Amino acid sequence: MTIPSAIEQSETSTKPSAETSFAERLDRLASVAVNVGLGLAPGQELVMTASTDAIPLARRITEQAYRAGASLVTTFYTDEEATLARFRYAPEESFERAPGWLFNGIAEAFRGGSARLAIAGADPALLANEDPQKVARANVANSKAYRPALEYITRHEINWTIVAAATPAWARRVFPNEPENIAVTKLWDAIFATTRIDVPDPVSNWREHDAQLRRRAALLNERRFATLHFRGPGTDLRVGLADDHLWMGGGTKAHNGLDCIPNMPTEEVFTTPHKDRVEGYVTSTKPLSYQGTLIENIAVRFEGGAITEARATQGETVLRRMIETDAGARRLGEVALVPNSSPIARSGLLFLNTLFDENAASHIALGQAYSTCIRGGDTLDSAQLAAKGANESLIHVDWMIGSGSIDLDGLHVDGTAEPLMRSGEWVG
Amino acid sequence: MTIPSAIEQSETSTKPSAETSFAERLDRLASVAVNVGLGLAPGQELVMTASTDAIPLARRITEQAYRAGASLVTTFYTDEEATLARFRYAPEESFERAPGWLFNGIAEAFRGGSARLAIAGADPALLANEDPQKVARANVANSKAYRPALEYITRHEINWTIVAAATPAWARRVFPNEPENIAVTKLWDAIFATTRIDVPDPVSNWREHDAQLRRRAALLNERRFATLHFRGPGTDLRVGLADDHLWMGGGTKAHNGLDCIPNMPTEEVFTTPHKDRVEGYVTSTKPLSYQGTLIENIAVRFEGGAITEARATQGETVLRRMIETDAGARRLGEVALVPNSSPIARSGLLFLNTLFDENAASHIALGQAYSTCIRGGDTLDSAQLAAKGANESLIHVDWMIGSGSIDLDGLHVDGTAEPLMRSGEWVG
Repeated sequence: MTIPSAIEQSETSTKPSAETSFAERLDRLASVAVNVGLGLAPGQELVMTASTDAIPLARRITEQAYRAGASLVTTFYTDEEATLARFRYAPEESFERAPGWLFNGIAEAFRGGSARLAIAGADPALLANEDPQKVARANVANSKAYRPALEYITRHEINWTIVAAATPAWARRVFPNEPENIAVTKLWDAIFATTRIDVPDPVSNWREHDAQLRRRAALLNERRFATLHFRGPGTDLRVGLADDHLWMGGGTKAHNGLDCIPNMPTEEVFTTPHKDRVEGYVTSTKPLSYQGTLIENIAVRFEGGAITEARATQGETVLRRMIETDAGARRLGEVALVPNSSPIARSGLLFLNTLFDENAASHIALGQAYSTCIRGGDTLDSAQLAAKGANESLIHVDWMIGSGSIDLDGLHVDGTAEPLMRSGEWVG
Repeated sequence: MTIPSAIEQSETSTKPSAETSFAERLDRLASVAVNVGLGLAPGQELVMTASTDAIPLARRITEQAYRAGASLVTTFYTDEEATLARFRYAPEESFERAPGWLFNGIAEAFRGGSARLAIAGADPALLANEDPQKVARANVANSKAYRPALEYITRHEINWTIVAAATPAWARRVFPNEPENIAVTKLWDAIFATTRIDVPDPVSNWREHDAQLRRRAALLNERRFATLHFRGPGTDLRVGLADDHLWMGGGTKAHNGLDCIPNMPTEEVFTTPHKDRVEGYVTSTKPLSYQGTLIENIAVRFEGGAITEARATQGETVLRRMIETDAGARRLGEVALVPNSSPIARSGLLFLNTLFDENAASHIALGQAYSTCIRGGDTLDSAQLAAKGANESLIHVDWMIGSGSIDLDGLHVDGTAEPLMRSGEWVG
């Protein structure tokens, strides 16, 4: 069976839309988010989170959700100025405090069958100038308090999705040389283009795109490659795959029976590498934004799964500190394949937001593996997961290794090779 | 002991403040709300609610709360457009739905010691054109679901306060003939003036004002009048007071030990009338905005506590329907005294918001009595409360009977009279 290549998809999806007003595009994004991304069922409640700068999109989504039969939409707005006020004025001893009572309420909503939609759009460097100790303490406290609610998300108990809105703070980081209003317009244009909104029928376009990603993952699962072999400028890397690895891509059927696409955009198929079976060298193809620092031109060598040499033309110290976080931080936890023709890659932008940047190019992640990318992984303990090659770490940092100059082969156990990508595009 | 009259207070508090910028006035309002209204204790959490149109004030309050030692401020923003979208697009069968999971979370926060601040500023006629059946069903569902949290408020378990922000929708209703930006500026000016912000030291001014209201209530409690006698144009009304009635005014000590002033502004002292001991006739001195209808020039006669004649030059049908709601709807549940020099009265505005309008003039309320205005009332059942004269009804509708032409005497059981107000102002 021939799978239509993503480049054809992409060419239809970037059709200019001079006649389509901003309001119409916003409405289309809202409709796609509710009807395809979330797959909201009639009668379902919806819990939404958004920045106060994303009110126009949140309103469109609210209307679309009610039109789709939502029984109640509850939106929690966060105001980044209030977050900053906390770091600047709250008592030193208060940074272990988190609104557990609120997260417990949200977990109760999920238990009651609510869906969940997040509008992304945070300032990527909001807390860059705040005390890192306070930031870390607040993050840990929030993560702990949020865990009961988050488990409904990570276990896919309920249908959920993330879409983005162009906020002024984010737009200023992406387009630092533009006036704010131009930056916001440009970022909206980029969001509409990469989220496949500027096409005649975004809903059916998304359904087709989702089906393609699922078919791509199914095909890779069928082939059961032992190893992926990346070759290109500065790169000759063999990434062994975990035993019983599972490729995933596109949508997910949540345990409540509803189909959702958790990330919009999404262009990747991804799986779990074997933590001890990565050999060779690789060079990053895009800058990595890590904790407020840009790390550029990463070049590392893997032996027996672990990084043995690490260099970067900028941010090398931060890179070295990152891979020394713990024993698993120098081994891979994810490998993801994205064609060079993905709308995000074609935008040429660094979005400084993983929702977009991880869909710009094939990438690897140092650190923690996803148990959902191991067959039956949800039922295995960490020793069993490790035995299959799944890595464990406190970090999970994606960085880009794909480009138009990369060839990729799938290698079988007997060493025979099948071409998967040529010059960054899917073969067949 | 001579109690300083409110008119002196008022004259110092309406000092023009041409040099004080809007930002400074907003900050003063925030400081007064946190430090006097809420009486926030260091280490206390704060749960705030606000319209998305009140973000600038919410930010100032957030900063002031953290400066005062708040451990965490969590703000819930409501967007009136989202509320409208629900009434327009949500399924017919969904209007019994309420976010009980959220209210349970908020109740958990109150149980954990959180304070509560509400920023008022809703469009007074937001739902005027929506289906009244849906509005009623949603209100009932919300009230039921919110009850566990609301009990912490009505029982004064925690410290709480309400302040107002000028939102465009509200400002347009108060100043329908002005362009929106002028209307908003005028409403802010009115809020700052009536909330006693335009004075050199609003915090100490508020503490003094609070002390005056408490002294006024204490003095009235000491006098133990049997009856209040209002006289003026179209009014000769004797309002018998409930047995063991308690006058209240100004701040409250919550059961968590913290002093708060639940309403800002507040100008009234109030108590519970005896439901069977109201005699005479009374004419309203300001229009009553009831469920989207303006009722003007209400003129009613009471015999044995109940209204026996009711007229109005406008909205008489609505008035009649209101007093026929139930048996208690034609009897009094509250009487409140406000001098004619109150900053709200002096503004000359109808705010269409009870937080302000009930502080513009002495008023009476038809319907439900407050058990807190009966000595030991919190521990009495409804039969015991009724025996003391406290009225019971589904409604509680305040309307203004005070003006600069009203004289008020307090009558003792033996019929001796003491002048309390002359031409609308306190005597002594």
